[in-house]
Amino acid sequence: MLEKNFEVEEVLELIEQKKFNDLKKYLERINGADFPTIFEEINDEDAIIVFRLLDKEKGAEVFAELDSDLQERLINSFTDVELKSVVDELFMDDTVDVIEEMPSNVVKRILRAVSDNDRKIINEMLNYPEDSAGSIMTTEFVDLKEDMTVAQAFEKIKKIGLKKETVYNCYVLDKNRKLVGVIDLKDLLVSERDELVKNLIDTDIVAVKTIDDREEVAKAFDKYGYVAMPVVDKEERLVGIVTVDDAIDVIVEEASEDFEKMAAITPTEEGYFKTSVFQHAKNRILWLLVLMLSSIVTGTIITNYEEAFAALPVLVAFIPMLMDTGGNCGSQSSTLIIRGLATDEIKLKDFFKALWKEIRVALIVGVILAIANGIRICIQYKNFKLALVVGLTLIGVVTISKVLGCMLPMLAKKLKLDPAIMAAPLITTVVDTCSVLLFFNIAVAILHI
Amino acid sequence: MLEKNFEVEEVLELIEQKKFNDLKKYLERINGADFPTIFEEINDEDAIIVFRLLDKEKGAEVFAELDSDLQERLINSFTDVELKSVVDELFMDDTVDVIEEMPSNVVKRILRAVSDNDRKIINEMLNYPEDSAGSIMTTEFVDLKEDMTVAQAFEKIKKIGLKKETVYNCYVLDKNRKLVGVIDLKDLLVSERDELVKNLIDTDIVAVKTIDDREEVAKAFDKYGYVAMPVVDKEERLVGIVTVDDAIDVIVEEASEDFEKMAAITPTEEGYFKTSVFQHAKNRILWLLVLMLSSIVTGTIITNYEEAFAALPVLVAFIPMLMDTGGNCGSQSSTLIIRGLATDEIKLKDFFKALWKEIRVALIVGVILAIANGIRICIQYKNFKLALVVGLTLIGVVTISKVLGCMLPMLAKKLKLDPAIMAAPLITTVVDTCSVLLFFNIAVAILHI
Repeated sequence: MLEKNFEVEEVLELIEQKKFNDLKKYLERINGADFPTIFEEINDEDAIIVFRLLDKEKGAEVFAELDSDLQERLINSFTDVELKSVVDELFMDDTVDVIEEMPSNVVKRILRAVSDNDRKIINEMLNYPEDSAGSIMTTEFVDLKEDMTVAQAFEKIKKIGLKKETVYNCYVLDKNRKLVGVIDLKDLLVSERDELVKNLIDTDIVAVKTIDDREEVAKAFDKYGYVAMPVVDKEERLVGIVTVDDAIDVIVEEASEDFEKMAAITPTEEGYFKTSVFQHAKNRILWLLVLMLSSIVTGTIITNYEEAFAALPVLVAFIPMLMDTGGNCGSQSSTLIIRGLATDEIKLKDFFKALWKEIRVALIVGVILAIANGIRICIQYKNFKLALVVGLTLIGVVTISKVLGCMLPMLAKKLKLDPAIMAAPLITTVVDTCSVLLFFNIAVAILHI
Repeated sequence: MLEKNFEVEEVLELIEQKKFNDLKKYLERINGADFPTIFEEINDEDAIIVFRLLDKEKGAEVFAELDSDLQERLINSFTDVELKSVVDELFMDDTVDVIEEMPSNVVKRILRAVSDNDRKIINEMLNYPEDSAGSIMTTEFVDLKEDMTVAQAFEKIKKIGLKKETVYNCYVLDKNRKLVGVIDLKDLLVSERDELVKNLIDTDIVAVKTIDDREEVAKAFDKYGYVAMPVVDKEERLVGIVTVDDAIDVIVEEASEDFEKMAAITPTEEGYFKTSVFQHAKNRILWLLVLMLSSIVTGTIITNYEEAFAALPVLVAFIPMLMDTGGNCGSQSSTLIIRGLATDEIKLKDFFKALWKEIRVALIVGVILAIANGIRICIQYKNFKLALVVGLTLIGVVTISKVLGCMLPMLAKKLKLDPAIMAAPLITTVVDTCSVLLFFNIAVAILHI
């Protein structure tokens, strides 16, 4: 487990005893990301006391971590001067995040608190499409010119006075603000002070565009291992950077979104407990209705074979097993393909390669399942022909489901749809129909019923 | 899309024309992470040519990105001097990664190429449990003492001469090598050269232990937004750091693993195409057999109600719909709970809170589905009682499946099992049995058959 270096109880006690000096010292030891745990336990009055004990920089760091309800209540308790001091310290992208969640009267107060120049930038950032690189970037970065010396570069860094991860990579721009390359802060540090910046540039830099999807940005972080990714506009001018902490948030959120889509849930960005019961129901009902209607088709097909199962009622007993196995096989294949597409490991040009792989896997798996089941049927029902019917159906069902599980997500991607919708629930419903049709047709043919 | 600043064709052409000077210049523009794409297209002889044109640092960076087969072939083409130069430049954790994948004769050559001290560290790292923080950390970091000045700190950093992300955070240790705090490189940079290190320390630092699971480490990155996480041993001495690029790999791999587990696949670390057909079959067959056996139970239960569906064959038509809907509802709930547990948003103490939420969602969703289906049945079969039977069953099935989907993953976590195994496939099979039992019992009671 993580080293925990504070106790919420200790904080509560210090507040109660009004030992604010001790509390101030104690709070200094606590990481900004742990403050939400503390704020959960205290009332708003105490929250503002705690908040006022933090220094400016830490205050902004803590503020950015809080949930939007508490942020709003805190802002309402802030004086204009306090609000300005928090907003001044916040990263630009965090300010934009806060603004997006606030009611209009609070937004107005925030926009009054920022400088004219920042207000312009904020308005621009609010206009980038949702989930684009532009919407998650920060506009604070170090830009250098090729003909600067290392000493001049340091002056510039000190003057901009940026925080943490925005400073590790310094970007070198030409006179049109186009991105020429990057210099690692470490390279500046170990160089002589009169060395020219242009001799230290790494030109193997990769950039994203403001309108790129944030998922692409996250993938690029995974691939290139940067701590910050430059973002350029249409004219290839550097306009911002995405820092790695935000990229991690995106990676985690995108995975959660895929999990939800693959379980037939309309994804939301709110957490589980933050989402109301009605919203949960709304997020789930649409797909359930669609899938219910399509499984009714399967049911209707079954009634067409009434004569068959009237003659041999035991046939009905195999329906759940065939449906479940088909569903599970399809879900295995579709999950692997969807995930492979999401991580760029599988590409559309691999279509036939993947299909051929799935077909061979299906045959192996199908034959093993057919034999296992065949033995069971021979023992339980002493009916070899029945074992043959079920076995052949199983091999067919497994193959169909693996082929569909492989093809449908890739087809979705080809059609510019999200492959994640072609996951277990939809595949299962499609495979169900195939299973039932295959089963009764084989049964009628072999058992002559 | 990402800005692509090279063409594989161009590389191939320059190799063919033996324009090695131009090639060398061209390669400098290409990011290390893009080299695997190039090596895919060229043969081993050309690969070693390309490799020899890279400078030492870039060569190591590129080498670390290659897949282990190609690494092995390259090592076999290396002279001992070349091997030593690559290994010297590699991060310690990358060297360990390479060693873990190589046959013993190659391992011996690598170990001969490293210094005595490094060999000791490598052997220690090879001994950390798989998937522990110790196994993914690097032992290269900057350690400072409290009574150093900023100028001395810079000297130390230059002397250690580390690369990129290992240098952004400098760790301050006491005389027992216990971790006292962290200093951001930026804070050193903007301070006066005679300032004391102890005045710049951040003490709100969080560390992980060598034996912590790598998943915990990844979660800590998500929470604290560090670019490097310190790793301490049992005596709380700093022994290494995990850098953010490795943490991102872990986050992506752990998500992939959960996707696979939740689709009833035994997870592997190899990629989709790297895994052989037989290995794929092996990874999938176990759960399929288990789930097949349990769905046979459902089938057997159906045969107990032979009289019921002999009297009213249309009953059979509703089985697929009830099974699918139950499965989908259970999978929705279990996915949300499993993901919530994985991201620490849902905790075990929230058991009843989550359960109560799921029950209310189930009732809303169940009633809507029952009404939709009821209308359909009244129109199609003109049989109100049948609509009532199916409707009541649906409400029951949805409730049971959402309750199980919520409870089982949390129960698994409580029992220290991986919640991800309690996903759609297993829940579906359990819910199937409940659906069939509930359906026929309600049918018998209301329809008197």
